Formats: sequence, structure tokens, C-alpha cells
Amino acid sequence: MLSAEEQLSELKRGATEILLESELLTKLKRGKPLRIKAGFDPTAPDLHLGHTVLINKMRRFQDFGHQVIFLIGDFTGLIGDPSGRNATRPPLTPDDVQANAKTYQDQIFKILDPAKTTVDFNSRWMSQLGSAGMIQLAAKSTVARMLERDDFSKRYKGGQPIAIHEFLYPLVQGYDSVALKADVELGGTDQKFNLLMGRQLQEAFGQEPQIVLTMPLLEGLDGVNKMSKSLGNYIGVNEDPDSMFGKLMSISDELMWRYFDLLSFRPNADLATLRQQLADGRNPMEIKFELAVELTTRFGGAAAAEQARQNFSSRSQRREVPENIETKIIAIDGANIGVAAAIKQAGLAESTSAANRLIQQGAVRIDGERVEDIKRALEPGPARLFQVGKRGFAYIEVVKSSS
Amino acid sequence: MLSAEEQLSELKRGATEILLESELLTKLKRGKPLRIKAGFDPTAPDLHLGHTVLINKMRRFQDFGHQVIFLIGDFTGLIGDPSGRNATRPPLTPDDVQANAKTYQDQIFKILDPAKTTVDFNSRWMSQLGSAGMIQLAAKSTVARMLERDDFSKRYKGGQPIAIHEFLYPLVQGYDSVALKADVELGGTDQKFNLLMGRQLQEAFGQEPQIVLTMPLLEGLDGVNKMSKSLGNYIGVNEDPDSMFGKLMSISDELMWRYFDLLSFRPNADLATLRQQLADGRNPMEIKFELAVELTTRFGGAAAAEQARQNFSSRSQRREVPENIETKIIAIDGANIGVAAAIKQAGLAESTSAANRLIQQGAVRIDGERVEDIKRALEPGPARLFQVGKRGFAYIEVVKSSS
Repeated sequence: MLSAEEQLSELKRGATEILLESELLTKLKRGKPLRIKAGFDPTAPDLHLGHTVLINKMRRFQDFGHQVIFLIGDFTGLIGDPSGRNATRPPLTPDDVQANAKTYQDQIFKILDPAKTTVDFNSRWMSQLGSAGMIQLAAKSTVARMLERDDFSKRYKGGQPIAIHEFLYPLVQGYDSVALKADVELGGTDQKFNLLMGRQLQEAFGQEPQIVLTMPLLEGLDGVNKMSKSLGNYIGVNEDPDSMFGKLMSISDELMWRYFDLLSFRPNADLATLRQQLADGRNPMEIKFELAVELTTRFGGAAAAEQARQNFSSRSQRREVPENIETKIIAIDGANIGVAAAIKQAGLAESTSAANRLIQQGAVRIDGERVEDIKRALEPGPARLFQVGKRGFAYIEVVKSSS
Repeated sequence: MLSAEEQLSELKRGATEILLESELLTKLKRGKPLRIKAGFDPTAPDLHLGHTVLINKMRRFQDFGHQVIFLIGDFTGLIGDPSGRNATRPPLTPDDVQANAKTYQDQIFKILDPAKTTVDFNSRWMSQLGSAGMIQLAAKSTVARMLERDDFSKRYKGGQPIAIHEFLYPLVQGYDSVALKADVELGGTDQKFNLLMGRQLQEAFGQEPQIVLTMPLLEGLDGVNKMSKSLGNYIGVNEDPDSMFGKLMSISDELMWRYFDLLSFRPNADLATLRQQLADGRNPMEIKFELAVELTTRFGGAAAAEQARQNFSSRSQRREVPENIETKIIAIDGANIGVAAAIKQAGLAESTSAANRLIQQGAVRIDGERVEDIKRALEPGPARLFQVGKRGFAYIEVVKSSS
């Protein structure tokens, strides 16, 4: 078991803000399991790695013995869009909510420890609160306080309508923390206002205020925009291992460190070692491999990850094709020409016997496929990409001699 | 039965505003009883004439066959002060509400026709609404709309806190109109915003919007400030008839017309006649008598009103005492002196026999009391106020002759 200070050091990793860090340390020092809350949308979940940033942090808390509450905010989902403006957002039924919860669990338990996870639903207490309870809750905050929230402030100043119920939602989220007696609430940086409302309401209800820990939004594969389905720069949690592996290998070296911070479970000390290795000249591709293997293992299992790694390697060899490859035209008199002779004529080997040796060594590929048969012959036809050894490339087009 | 136009003419009397008058006329023309709503505070009611301005208007609607809903807004009262700032406003119990409703009925049925009155309580639907219903209700209006309300606007600009639940109360009041399917809602001018919310919500719920009819605040006896308990310028509904009569007779002639407009049930044509009589030289005191008799009859019954009128008259005669009354000292040798002789000696009658005639006519008062006994004798003692006829006044002090 790590000390409170050691836990804090790991928990801080990648976090945007902890309010208040000193209070978190105090709570950790008590040595009792803390109640860690994070809220999730009740609508059909299809998670990508961006979503897992928060879930990973929950997992880290679990690693240190704490209890996680995966809260599905179904209460507002069951209401639907009360403004009636959004016809595409009909109310969820309780069956929808259960189905979505099941879909969540299929995904999150690839990360979270089920033994230290409670999946809960805020309709459990919100439906009981009643209209009087809602009014009493609304009395706990002020209009001016709500208009401090960035998006509300912008809309109010810009003359865009804010429906009154939008002021109630932060209160509902805050009251969830009261109902759950949360010690810590995790959320994205965009949730900070609502998370602080939890602190305020817990104090109003005589509880010790929760710690607010915000995590940044994860950049997508482009390294610039946040990861999102609509931008197409995402890696899905349920994506097939080959695709996941390949996408992870495609990110920039800079983004790789960001992903290590936010997605890897390797301790801080390991990451420091990897950084040192890079500084000492280790190929960054190798380090990226470690990240890709860890994440593909997490979501696809070790065997699938190993297979994905191998598939990526061979694909990647195929893909290592230089630009500006010359095209050689080989005119033949007969019906075909042997591969070795073609290699010799194209200047990719000193001699036909040297070419034959290379074929025997498996160092010759045509259109990415290894040439297995030393006696293979080529008919006239469109240009084919020849790769001979690591560096010999040419498009070879066999044509019928015009005699 | 009056025509719609005639009804409108009476219903408009004294009203500050009708929104929209054309819609009210349309509703009246349908010839069906309308549902007239007015909301009242659930806290201990002790009504004064200021409160009856609204109730009188309800009564006028009843006179024309319409149904009145006397709505006690107990829902918020049962919550108490949810901000917890006002420790002196604990939540009402359902028993409190029933007791207060009883007290209301004891007073309002001096004005309203019980057969055309429904006393209702908004907790009946508000308690059922639930937290989800409250959110859906809150979605029907916007923050900007609420901040248009004068008092909210002032507080917001002045940096004074507005608790969120204060935004919910106008919505609750508006929803009451939906639940009651009100055709018309009456309220004070200060209620205009909330009354209009009823229109807005009824439209949102697919109902024909209610007519809003606002009545001004009644000026108190001083004719300047609004009638209120704390200013002491009020006439209570349960005040004893003598006191009510006297207070009504004390108001200025100008205020008398205001009270006719807002408190009298006499039709417009009667009031026009009275104004004409005044212009033709009729004593305004006599017209005020008619007002005082009407209102005292309403709250105390005809017999009590007649008694109050008589009492007032005699008190008022007693009170018609000029300033700077002379004091006459009458020195006597014997044990006492006859009243008629004293009057003669004080110069209030030509002769003792003239004085005796005045006593027999009931035209002599001592300290306001009519002298009934012609043989009454006065001992020496402190000065007494003698009134002989309309204009003869003197303080008469009988002293023992110092011989």
C-alpha cells in the first residue's frame, strides 16, 4: 500500500486541477477507502479513449483501495428535453437506461475493478425529492452564482435564452454528491463549475465538502483537436486490436507522452525511465510500441495485442516504401521472364544468381507479398512494385518486345 | 343579466389594467360562467379594506354569474423559507393551513357569495408535480424573462442575491392557472409579472390564456400611503362597526370617491348621480354617510350599521365644539344651583325660563350628555362643558361663594 503522499503523486498525474489538494491529502491520510464519484451521460454510450481518461483515474483510485461510484445521470435523461426544442432527444425509458448501463459496464470493466465499483443511478434519489425538495434545493444557490458559469455568462450577455431549468441541472449534479456522500468527484475541466456546486451543497447539507479533481480533454490522433467521433480522430474502446494498434502507432512522438500520462497505468517512475531512454537515443517507435501494446492489451487482451503487434510490424514493413520509385520497363521476346532475371535487368541485383539468393532469403516482395517460389515467372502486364532487401525499390513493367 | 359590454364597464371600474380587454369581452360574450382566480397568502389572514379591493372585484364577477376560485397558495407556505434566512417563517403545517383557511372564510364570505366560490389550495397539484415536473415547468421560461421583473432586476443590478427558488415561485403561480384552467386572474399591480406568467404557461400548455386584471393598492385613511397594518392607517374587516364608521367618516372628500370606486358595490350610474349631487351643492358629509353605511352594513350587518350611524351622529355633535370656549365661574351661596339658572348666569340663554325650554327640547348637553332632568342641580366642582343649542358653548365652573 502506497503512502498518502505517494498516492497523491500518482493521482495528480495529468490532472488539470485539484481543489483542494491539501484536503485530498488529509482524506488520503485517514487510511480509509474514499468514495470516488464520477457522473456519466445516460444516453447510448460508445466510449473512445478520450472518455477513458476519467475512468483511468477512477481505476488509479481503485488501485489504492478506494471505492468508485460510476454514476449514471439518468434522472434528467428520463425527463428528456423539457424545453421541447430538441425533438431528437425524446425521454429515455427505464429500459433504455438499463440497456445503456449494460453497454457501459461491458466497456468500463475493461478498466475498472468490478469489486470496487458501484454503478448507481441518480433517479434513485432525484425522483423521490419531489417538487418541494426541488424548491428547497434551488434555494441553496443564487442567480448571480449561476451566471458566473462561463457558458451561461456568454449566453446571457449575448442575448441568447437560458431556460430556468438549466440552472437546476448543476444543482441536481451537486445534490448527487450529497446523496452519495462523495469524498472526491472527478470530471472534465468543462465540469468544474458543476463539481464545485457539489462542494457547496455538501457544505450546505452539513457534509465535508468533496475534493474536485478535473482532467483535461484528450487530444485526438491529430494531436490538436479533442478526441471525438465527429472529428474522426478517435480510437474506440471496442475498436478491433489491429486498428487500435495501428492508430496508436500513428500518433506523433509528442502526443505519445500525452497519451502515456493520461492513458497508461505505468507508474510515474517508469515514464521517467522511458523519457531518459529516448534522450539516450532509443528509437521513439519502440517506446510507442510499449504504449500501443499496453492499451491494446487492456481492451483486447494479451493475445490479441500480440497478434496486432505482429500484424502491425509486417504491415509497417510493407509500408516502408520510399517516394519517387523509378519505373523500369523490361521488354521480353518470350511469354514471360523469371523474377530473378527481372530483378537483375531492373538493376536491383548485381546478377541473376545474387537475385536468386535474395529470393531464397525471403528478401524479395512483389506488391508487398513475399516471393516464395524461386522459379516464379512474370507475364507482361501492369507495373508491379518490387522490393529487394531493405532499400531496393522499383516498379517493374514487363512488356512484349515489339519486333 | 347584464350584456357583456355592461359587465365589462362595471368590471373595469377602478382597475389599473386589463390584459387584454378585447379578450375579456370575447369571453364575456360567450355567456358562460367564467373561472375567476385570485391567489392569497396562506399565512394568518387578518384582512383590512385594502385587501377587499380584490375580493370586491371577485364579488362583481359573481354578481354577473361567474365562478370565483379563492386560491390559498399553501404549497410554498408548507415549505417555509427554504433559504433558511428567515427564522421567523417556519413551515406551516397542514393544520395551520386549514385554520387559516377557516379564518379567511369567516371574513371573505361577508363579501363573496359562497355558492359561487370555490376555496382551493395549490398544494393539491403542486405536491403531485414531482421534481421532474418542476424541472419541466422551469423549462418554460428563461432567465432573461425573470430578470425583467422589476424587483429582480433591481436586486441583480444592485448586487443583492436572488436565490434560484425565487425564479420558481412565479412559475408555480402561473402553473396554478393551468391547473385551474382560469379564465381571468385578479391581482394587485405588483403582481402583474406573475399574472402574465399564467398567460404564458397556459399557452405553453395549450390553453386559452387567462385575462389579467390588476387592481391598484388602496390608500389608507391618510389618503397618501397604501393601507397597511404597520402604518396604522387601516380599517379592519372585523373592526367594530362604530370604529369602522368613524374612520370612514374621517377620510377626505377626495379619498371618498376613491373608496366609492374601489369599495362600493353601487353601480357606476349611482356614483355619477352622487357626483352630480355634490356639484349641485349637496353636503359631502351626507354622501360620505352613504359610503360608511354601505361598508359598515357589509361587514357588521344592517342593524349594527344603523346603530353605528346613530352613535357617530351623537359623537359628532359632541365633537362639534368650537375652539376658545370661554370659562364662566358661577359663585353660589347655597349647596347647588339649578342647570337652567346656571345657563342664564353664564349668558347662554336670555332667561331661566328660556333655558328651561331649551332643556325640555333636549338642546342642552353637559360634557356631551343630554340633560334629561329639568330639575337637575349642580354642586360646586371642576368646570363642565355646556352646550346649549347648536352654537352656545361655555365651560361653567361652580364655586362656593367666599363670603
